[in-house]
Amino acid sequence: MCFEGDVDTKIKIDNKVKNVKTVWLEGNQVKMINQSKLPYMFEIFTSNSALETIEAIKQMIVRGAPAIGCSAAYAIVQAALEIETNIDLFWAHIEEVAELLRNSRPTGKNLSFAIDRVLKKMREGKNIKECRRLAIEEAELIAKEDIEFCRKIGEHGKDLIKSGDNVLVHCNPGALGTIEYGTALAIIRFAYHHDGKEIFVYVNETRPKCQGSRLTAWELIQEEIPFVIIADNTAGHFMKNGKIDLVIVGADRIAKNGDTANKIGTYSLAVLAKENKIPFYVAAPSSTFDLGCDSGLQIPIENRSEDEIKYFSGLDEEGVLRKIKIGPEEAKYLNPAFDITPAEYITAFITEKGIKILSDTLP
Amino acid sequence: MCFEGDVDTKIKIDNKVKNVKTVWLEGNQVKMINQSKLPYMFEIFTSNSALETIEAIKQMIVRGAPAIGCSAAYAIVQAALEIETNIDLFWAHIEEVAELLRNSRPTGKNLSFAIDRVLKKMREGKNIKECRRLAIEEAELIAKEDIEFCRKIGEHGKDLIKSGDNVLVHCNPGALGTIEYGTALAIIRFAYHHDGKEIFVYVNETRPKCQGSRLTAWELIQEEIPFVIIADNTAGHFMKNGKIDLVIVGADRIAKNGDTANKIGTYSLAVLAKENKIPFYVAAPSSTFDLGCDSGLQIPIENRSEDEIKYFSGLDEEGVLRKIKIGPEEAKYLNPAFDITPAEYITAFITEKGIKILSDTLP
Repeated sequence: MCFEGDVDTKIKIDNKVKNVKTVWLEGNQVKMINQSKLPYMFEIFTSNSALETIEAIKQMIVRGAPAIGCSAAYAIVQAALEIETNIDLFWAHIEEVAELLRNSRPTGKNLSFAIDRVLKKMREGKNIKECRRLAIEEAELIAKEDIEFCRKIGEHGKDLIKSGDNVLVHCNPGALGTIEYGTALAIIRFAYHHDGKEIFVYVNETRPKCQGSRLTAWELIQEEIPFVIIADNTAGHFMKNGKIDLVIVGADRIAKNGDTANKIGTYSLAVLAKENKIPFYVAAPSSTFDLGCDSGLQIPIENRSEDEIKYFSGLDEEGVLRKIKIGPEEAKYLNPAFDITPAEYITAFITEKGIKILSDTLP
Repeated sequence: MCFEGDVDTKIKIDNKVKNVKTVWLEGNQVKMINQSKLPYMFEIFTSNSALETIEAIKQMIVRGAPAIGCSAAYAIVQAALEIETNIDLFWAHIEEVAELLRNSRPTGKNLSFAIDRVLKKMREGKNIKECRRLAIEEAELIAKEDIEFCRKIGEHGKDLIKSGDNVLVHCNPGALGTIEYGTALAIIRFAYHHDGKEIFVYVNETRPKCQGSRLTAWELIQEEIPFVIIADNTAGHFMKNGKIDLVIVGADRIAKNGDTANKIGTYSLAVLAKENKIPFYVAAPSSTFDLGCDSGLQIPIENRSEDEIKYFSGLDEEGVLRKIKIGPEEAKYLNPAFDITPAEYITAFITEKGIKILSDTLP
């Protein structure tokens, strides 16, 4: 994660996983850290086709708006490598894959951003071979930019954290949600490792899928950054009692007016931060911004399966991965995966370009 | 639950559990619905000694401030029945049990309220036999009053709900948390069953112990009241989108100034309700009020085991009750079980005496 090095060295160093990207292309295969298996096992998932990559996105084997965007770009590359006889069939397949990708996870902007970029570049090609080359180049450029942008987010954002600060994070705005470094976690990493500040992280477990307790906690362990996991219900209590100095979250789509779609629960945290006069920051690369959306009202909210709340996966006492049922069989569940935080609750955005302050009413 | 009838008829009627109290005394045994087994199995737990009842309170086989209060009163009765030879040994045992009870769950007021009442009454007795009779009478009076007070809470509060309203509830402010009827759920029951209003309930799953998805959902199924379970992270989103008309919660301790201790996450809901101009009601019998606490600052907050967040219990696919681990082994967790909602966020209290409006800034 987040350190320099080749993909090939994706081995445990001092019992920590380092030097591995979240998603990468190898020939016609897309390889990705299987995030549905973390923290129980570290496993690389190999997708052999564009359709398999789409399924991996839907099943959240890869998740996090920037990582999904790069995976989508690679899926288009896979689609381009799947048809070689006829340019019409070639483009029909590309368009079909692009459409399936767009519908796989509707809320995040990075997905359509990446698809549009690769398709646009490919259209410059005069034949299948050229289209393929351009697709690979553009997909790799997107991934490279993602790494570079996240690194810059970390560098720009690190001064927002003072030594001694307690930072609250929600979901997994980490290296696993991008290609390397992460967004909110990039800032924490740079402040902690590069500047040597004392930082303590409060990690919201982030129901229903617990990306906080499963993924963010796992990343912080790899990086040896001190943290504690709390139930989402507890964040307000700790804010009120002066235990949280700032909140940093990632984003899945940011409208023109600054309204931000992010993991369900983000809106609640933003309201609680405002009420308790705590800065609330959103960290995201420019690929998450959607100038075609005037406000949050136009951002589609993905509703996911009720099974994500009804059932829970984890390791039993013998170390076997099991799914258990929590509530009564007859119960119904509602599971919107994202919410919209109006811009008025956001202190500032941190992007690869710098810090854009929205509200100066906060410290 | 919550309907008239003898404890003896605690059988399923039309496949629903009805006519059973949450806790009751039978000779020197305290019987209680084993809430740690719901919704997976309906089982009556029998405590054969005061110490067993204390352990049942600690382990949350019985929970909910009023139900804990009554269980504590019965535990004192058990203690009184355990020593018969010597009045000094008798009182030493009573005092020891009372002290253990007071430390078993520190936040709820009903516990010390019930202990103090039974002890005070017992002190009128001139010998062990008389003390025992007075203890039984007082404990049964507390339980009877609890039923009566909760019924009145339902009757007083039901007019706060209009037909067509969507009500959000947190944790289990239900019959299981009292002897019958519940507090917040008593209001919903009376509005739905007695007045025939159309009501839909949003149930917060209430991490970490999921009293919402396990207990409140189970009660609503028994009573055939329509509901849906949501992750706690989702409540703010639904409030902002106009899906919630009012919030009703229970309470564990209410200070003189109205500051209210209740299940962790209540404070966050209250802030979100205020931000979205949604009435936020607290329903509790007078036994939950603590005039000895000037404000919420004096209410002790119970910190429970980190295992409650780290592990999760439920049924596996073969119907076996299992405990699974969610996060990484190395992670630490913080688990305050309650938070304090300042009075300024509370629209009104509903008690057995009526409705006390605190804030008229809300609709």
